[in-house]
Amino acid sequence: MCSQYCISIADVKKACSEIKDLIHVTPILTSSILDQLAGRKLFFKCELFQKTGSFKIRGAFNAIRSLTSNTSGDRKKPKAVVTHSSGNHGQALSYAARLEGIPAYIVVPRTAPSCKKSAIRGYGATLVDCEPSDESRKMVAARIVKQTEGIMVHPNQCPAVMAGQGTIALEVLEQALRPEVKVYAAEPCNADDCFQSKLKGELTPNPSPPDTIADGVKSSIGPYSWPIIRDLVDEVFTVTEDEIKHATQLVWERMKLLIEPTAAVGVAAVLGEQFQKMPALQNVCVVLSGGNVDLTSLGWLKRAEETQLPLD
Amino acid sequence: MCSQYCISIADVKKACSEIKDLIHVTPILTSSILDQLAGRKLFFKCELFQKTGSFKIRGAFNAIRSLTSNTSGDRKKPKAVVTHSSGNHGQALSYAARLEGIPAYIVVPRTAPSCKKSAIRGYGATLVDCEPSDESRKMVAARIVKQTEGIMVHPNQCPAVMAGQGTIALEVLEQALRPEVKVYAAEPCNADDCFQSKLKGELTPNPSPPDTIADGVKSSIGPYSWPIIRDLVDEVFTVTEDEIKHATQLVWERMKLLIEPTAAVGVAAVLGEQFQKMPALQNVCVVLSGGNVDLTSLGWLKRAEETQLPLD
Repeated sequence: MCSQYCISIADVKKACSEIKDLIHVTPILTSSILDQLAGRKLFFKCELFQKTGSFKIRGAFNAIRSLTSNTSGDRKKPKAVVTHSSGNHGQALSYAARLEGIPAYIVVPRTAPSCKKSAIRGYGATLVDCEPSDESRKMVAARIVKQTEGIMVHPNQCPAVMAGQGTIALEVLEQALRPEVKVYAAEPCNADDCFQSKLKGELTPNPSPPDTIADGVKSSIGPYSWPIIRDLVDEVFTVTEDEIKHATQLVWERMKLLIEPTAAVGVAAVLGEQFQKMPALQNVCVVLSGGNVDLTSLGWLKRAEETQLPLD
Repeated sequence: MCSQYCISIADVKKACSEIKDLIHVTPILTSSILDQLAGRKLFFKCELFQKTGSFKIRGAFNAIRSLTSNTSGDRKKPKAVVTHSSGNHGQALSYAARLEGIPAYIVVPRTAPSCKKSAIRGYGATLVDCEPSDESRKMVAARIVKQTEGIMVHPNQCPAVMAGQGTIALEVLEQALRPEVKVYAAEPCNADDCFQSKLKGELTPNPSPPDTIADGVKSSIGPYSWPIIRDLVDEVFTVTEDEIKHATQLVWERMKLLIEPTAAVGVAAVLGEQFQKMPALQNVCVVLSGGNVDLTSLGWLKRAEETQLPLD
């Protein structure tokens, strides 16, 4: 821990060594067609190929590892782990808990994609429904923690989880890029708590449950992540639902990577108008965060347009 | 040329050096979940990431290169190139022809997926509709060759195309496997001309236009490929439409790779009952041939089943 933020670079490095035998080093892919569309060189960090289909396993493993080891080096198991999650963190925690033989209880909004719910059950966790609001998630999770005498592993406000997710950056730096990088965030216009917080200079959660196809970013940022975003994220870009859908379909059709719409938010940002105004940025790495798509709800897909395609 | 077959290993090696600056060396990916399901180690050669979205560009480039060079080393251009193709060879030839500034005419069954037709137009070629039968394809293509004074580049009975496609094998051998390999073919039960030919010991085309979701293998093998298949393919496995659909969805959901159903035929084979009877085969490389999917025709997708998933 450093005083300024809830985690330091040392925590991220420690997380790296804790989880490295459990996770995949995912490839970084490129696409000349997307380079042409973006007007710069893009590097796609393919966390959709990560175990459980998203980067969330990094944080989940690190949290479980930190719960099962204490300072004296003894291993002891919690009675249960509990979280609320629109899906990917829930899957990841279920998987990590099962590896350590710990029961997992996952609170999921009843509106979450059915494929994500099925996967959580598939990993052996117990699913608990809640309403699609931050309040309901928290309330139901607190109740389950009490009932099971379990430990809450928050999807994004648990320092061990945050340090685990941070290992993506270390991996990218090792694989491809130099350390003097800028860090940009991207989020849907319809769930722009990060953008609003930066604008106002204070943590500003979404006022109501957001309506966005990017279901992985519906929950708001919190008190642990806000100071890091405030100080270390250079800019936040917001993208429309149409831009997210277009970017999803583009990556599917042109890169053949089955990303989930949440993973297309960053792609939409680098293809968007605001980004075009920064031609000096020649190399951009986009994290494709996950690939857990509900394949039965693709009504929004557009027929292939008969346009002149750029040469790949 | 060797006397026995229309191409030799020397032709394939020559094709390798002709096209290597034009194509991607596609990655070989693995999946522990699919290994568990198959009961052996699988290596997936990802030709869905190849230029134009399938391996067909290898043959198309090699054919175009051989047409534009002659023995005295002069380069001369044909007036046009013509082919009939259910899609991927059509896209590939269009792309390769455009790079050399040669007009391309592609005869496509009117029933082919719209995304493939759009892509062919996108690569700048002229599309000519035909009926979905081998006879109609041939007849219309012959007419266009005459009208344009062009040269026919057959999808699978042109030696230069065949040598180009063979470069996949050289690449796999370089990337992963030892040369003492067995070669298995897989095809839909509904388009089993290869299986029937092996059974009868003579070239036996499909008696009528096949009805299969694997649109890339609807056309029959021919006199150039038959002797090679007869002598060098160890066995042919056939798979049902349900098995193809299941394998497609499995690769999408579990590997996050957007393969087209034709590319799932081999996956279905290694997961099938017949293959399970050969436990001695510990390592199998499956070529994922292409990723050009019509995303607007996915009515066959099944809801995720609530099964206990194996750990990845």
